Amino acid sequence: MTKRKKIVVIGGGTGTFTVLSGLKKYPFDLTAIVAMADDGGSTGTLRDELGVLPPGDVRQCLVALSSSDKLMRDLMNYRFAAGGLKGHNFGNLLLSALEKVTGSFDSAVEKAGEVLRIRGKVVPVTLSKIRLHAQLANGKILKGEHNIDMPKGAARSRIVRAWLSPAARANPAAIRAIREADVIIIAPGDLYTSLAPNFLVRGVSDAIRKSKALKVQVANLMNKVQHTKGFSLQDLAAAVERYIGGPLDKVIYNNKLPAKTLLKKYARQGEEPVPAGPDGLDKKRFVGAQLTAIKARTAQKGDALARSFIRHDPARLAKTIARVIDYRP
Amino acid sequence: MTKRKKIVVIGGGTGTFTVLSGLKKYPFDLTAIVAMADDGGSTGTLRDELGVLPPGDVRQCLVALSSSDKLMRDLMNYRFAAGGLKGHNFGNLLLSALEKVTGSFDSAVEKAGEVLRIRGKVVPVTLSKIRLHAQLANGKILKGEHNIDMPKGAARSRIVRAWLSPAARANPAAIRAIREADVIIIAPGDLYTSLAPNFLVRGVSDAIRKSKALKVQVANLMNKVQHTKGFSLQDLAAAVERYIGGPLDKVIYNNKLPAKTLLKKYARQGEEPVPAGPDGLDKKRFVGAQLTAIKARTAQKGDALARSFIRHDPARLAKTIARVIDYRP
Repeated sequence: MTKRKKIVVIGGGTGTFTVLSGLKKYPFDLTAIVAMADDGGSTGTLRDELGVLPPGDVRQCLVALSSSDKLMRDLMNYRFAAGGLKGHNFGNLLLSALEKVTGSFDSAVEKAGEVLRIRGKVVPVTLSKIRLHAQLANGKILKGEHNIDMPKGAARSRIVRAWLSPAARANPAAIRAIREADVIIIAPGDLYTSLAPNFLVRGVSDAIRKSKALKVQVANLMNKVQHTKGFSLQDLAAAVERYIGGPLDKVIYNNKLPAKTLLKKYARQGEEPVPAGPDGLDKKRFVGAQLTAIKARTAQKGDALARSFIRHDPARLAKTIARVIDYRP
Repeated sequence: MTKRKKIVVIGGGTGTFTVLSGLKKYPFDLTAIVAMADDGGSTGTLRDELGVLPPGDVRQCLVALSSSDKLMRDLMNYRFAAGGLKGHNFGNLLLSALEKVTGSFDSAVEKAGEVLRIRGKVVPVTLSKIRLHAQLANGKILKGEHNIDMPKGAARSRIVRAWLSPAARANPAAIRAIREADVIIIAPGDLYTSLAPNFLVRGVSDAIRKSKALKVQVANLMNKVQHTKGFSLQDLAAAVERYIGGPLDKVIYNNKLPAKTLLKKYARQGEEPVPAGPDGLDKKRFVGAQLTAIKARTAQKGDALARSFIRHDPARLAKTIARVIDYRP
């Protein structure tokens, strides 16, 4: 038997969920490194009330990698609808209760992974309790990811800089996974709230830059106003390269525009598909394929995916990744 | 291999927990039939806010029968300490979320039993949504188990009658287990709030009376003021026999008084050890043994057991039960 490729996927909840959901059907050795800056919704309430680390994004990755039955996955994403529990996903409560019982979030993630019989590993990028901060083009400083996430339709200045406070120490398991990886995939996600919270953790960008792994970005389908309005695919790659301090080897992008009706809906929020730059794409680095789902309406259960309708199809995306990393069954 | 004895344990949360914790170390085929009238604490909040069936007593039985590691059992009993989740046991939330996701409480119990790898079965006595009602000696009628449970130290008239409303239909799985049982054990527990809510479910008492199983009561250690003040062991057995409409074969009782300091503490709440009646005990039916724990201080985690200090020792109790039902390894 040949050695299984070690693939590390770096990102936040939804983007990583999509990549993992597709890749788990391949015989790869998968590790998800997950941002830990979320502080909105159920996750934010748990942080505030119980003093735990943010469970939401980790939960999504655990569900993506779970080999349990559908019922268990549905249970993890089940959201209580009333009373004092209203808005909490059961999986978030599982992780927070496990953190309390075991005394550490990484033990909690490990145990939840056992219960959900995950194929692969889920590794929080940091175990420090941190908040994301962002400065806007107009000079204003926002504190906390849920304050930075722009409410739909609201006009707001572009983000120009993001940082974590207090400074976050890297989870040693994350650094180890990056060092040992054959492939590092930067998952799709909002630049400042899903991707940057990983790169901003001390030691993470260095480890990625120094790693001999093939570095692959999965480019976003759409530009979010506040994050990357007007960015080309090259700009998107350059933004990640600035964080890493070194080059990406490949950028996978969607080359088939979604349906016009969907695009119109997004345009009303100021969101446009990410175009190629004026000079055209370097075809050695930029790999295009149809990556969007055909059935846009069948949003999956769970908060994050249900929010948007133009999104990556896990199977198509995984197939393209497999091709790019030269996987032969 | 000889056929394993089919033992059905009938009761509420704590009493059944104790019996099951001891018996699970024997090669018996165990089924716990659990009262479904609890509506206090975390269970009451979940009933009120989510419209679910009461999870608390079932949770305790699942934990008792679990062959998972200590961490999983601790997780089930973990009680959130702050915020909107305050007071909820994680295991209660698991059962309620599973009830929502599966659409039925019995599926929820089955799935939770899988997750906890239980040895045996836990069967809710009814799946009807019912409330316990009680009439006091002074004529007053109380509605809801948590209103009937007497607050510590409060003077209140004795209960003279209890009923369920609306009328509860028996869970067919409970009736089946009773019919097929080799041994039926009536667990220790408060007469009106732990035991009666089983017997009051339509068809249950009939099935017990008609069953060919050996019928064994584990007598309470202490008389609770409101339930059985002044009862002898014979009175306690007679009370259960009145519900069943037929005789018990054996009554197991504790024949070694707890430490005087403990007894004094209980006496302040008006609770006394259950004595033999004036005519002495029929030694063919009443089997005495030392059933209390030596280390009274090591109360186990979880709400119910931590409340009281004079309690059965699971191992001693199980050993006595094994002797009474003529089990030979």
